[in-house]
Amino acid sequence: MKVAVLQYRPEFLAVDANLDTVEEMLSEVDADLVVLPELFATGYFFRSTADAQSVSEPVPGGKTTDRMVEWAREGKYIVVGGLVEECSGRLFNSAAIVGPDGYVGRYRKLHLYYEEKLHFEQGNLGLPVFAVVDRSGQPYTLGVMICFDWYYPEASRTLALEGADIIAHPANLVRPDCPRAMPIRALENHLFTATANRIGAESVGNRTLTFIGQSEVCSPAGQVLVSMTRDEAGVAVVELDPAESRDRRVTDHNDLLADRRTDAYVL
Amino acid sequence: MKVAVLQYRPEFLAVDANLDTVEEMLSEVDADLVVLPELFATGYFFRSTADAQSVSEPVPGGKTTDRMVEWAREGKYIVVGGLVEECSGRLFNSAAIVGPDGYVGRYRKLHLYYEEKLHFEQGNLGLPVFAVVDRSGQPYTLGVMICFDWYYPEASRTLALEGADIIAHPANLVRPDCPRAMPIRALENHLFTATANRIGAESVGNRTLTFIGQSEVCSPAGQVLVSMTRDEAGVAVVELDPAESRDRRVTDHNDLLADRRTDAYVL
Repeated sequence: MKVAVLQYRPEFLAVDANLDTVEEMLSEVDADLVVLPELFATGYFFRSTADAQSVSEPVPGGKTTDRMVEWAREGKYIVVGGLVEECSGRLFNSAAIVGPDGYVGRYRKLHLYYEEKLHFEQGNLGLPVFAVVDRSGQPYTLGVMICFDWYYPEASRTLALEGADIIAHPANLVRPDCPRAMPIRALENHLFTATANRIGAESVGNRTLTFIGQSEVCSPAGQVLVSMTRDEAGVAVVELDPAESRDRRVTDHNDLLADRRTDAYVL
Repeated sequence: MKVAVLQYRPEFLAVDANLDTVEEMLSEVDADLVVLPELFATGYFFRSTADAQSVSEPVPGGKTTDRMVEWAREGKYIVVGGLVEECSGRLFNSAAIVGPDGYVGRYRKLHLYYEEKLHFEQGNLGLPVFAVVDRSGQPYTLGVMICFDWYYPEASRTLALEGADIIAHPANLVRPDCPRAMPIRALENHLFTATANRIGAESVGNRTLTFIGQSEVCSPAGQVLVSMTRDEAGVAVVELDPAESRDRRVTDHNDLLADRRTDAYVL
């Protein structure tokens, strides 16, 4: 199957324009799974909760999820992308998962970073995985985590234990370390990861966040299969076999997940 | 305080000669904590359990721990090193921790690698941490893990949650990934790591294990403070402040360990 990660610079709060830009960028993409950045159509550095509220929407049923479903139907792929979810007056930093047949599910970010804590509620839907299929009908299991979740090995481990073959990882990274950590997340869980990050910078007052790009797809062997630069806009596509994740023998005597010593961990 | 990691090529099963070599290598070392490799005086690739049995000893009270105590007394440092522990007829891949006042404690490797499973019992003492002091009397908390334990983020996370400032990590690494994973272990737990690996190669029949050297000390910021090559023998020493590990604020809004979402992990 082919996995695509999209990297670009959204315009702050310009949802309609950003959706059009992403639609244009995806128009020629040949893939089974498309991963978009965190908050991919809204921008990131909200000056106030009112800013976040102004671009929030229900999931499903909002304009962003609806457009994602159009793209998924057209391209016959699964799309994972981040957005501001509004639910009963509360805001979540969420990812929607959609496919050619419509809405699949959502994930609400567990580990909020920096001033996200001022605007969003902590995720309250755990770390679900989703049983999906590629265009040839082959099933695979998709996990989702968002940006700063990478910092917590418990997140990707939970997804691995739930059977994820691939972790889709929408991001708005500003810290420098994720690009060298994701190959380790892939290796230690023996699965694929697909990080879609944004580029550009946003400021509130004299505080500026610069997004680091470097979107990448990593393999169960901990290799970077494809990576983008710090400032390019585009879509990177790589072919991979999700079934590779399922044989978790490390040696003839070691099975990665079976060898965990849950009796000894104090977590 | 100063942390030293020792890297060399032991002679297979030649415990007395190896102890003499390490004693000589340590004779001029100025440090507060010395980390030696896994199975540092015995060699690694046992042809049989009888091989491992032949170099096993009780901990404390065996010749290796006794010699380590002599070194610790002379150098006024803590020493952590790996050895074959015999206990009631069972063998463990253990690390002894000793100081100027004698025996401090032991750790029995939890995650056995490859044919270690044929000779050793799995560790059954959990992941203890040790309250120790440097030469100036400043206290710090020492965690210990052995070699393949690095692959399991649960091990270093458990030590962090128990308050470890530094993880001493005796190793006999043969896989290539640990040197790039340890900075991530240090970063994700905001603590120091000190990996002491061996060099050289050992064979059983036509199977050869080549040890990768690259001993290294990593900082809570995920930086490599000092590293050795794939084939040099020597002792690398670096100065660090273990108290740096204790402020685990990632941003003004994020505390690394307090922000864990234990309600959502399925581990």
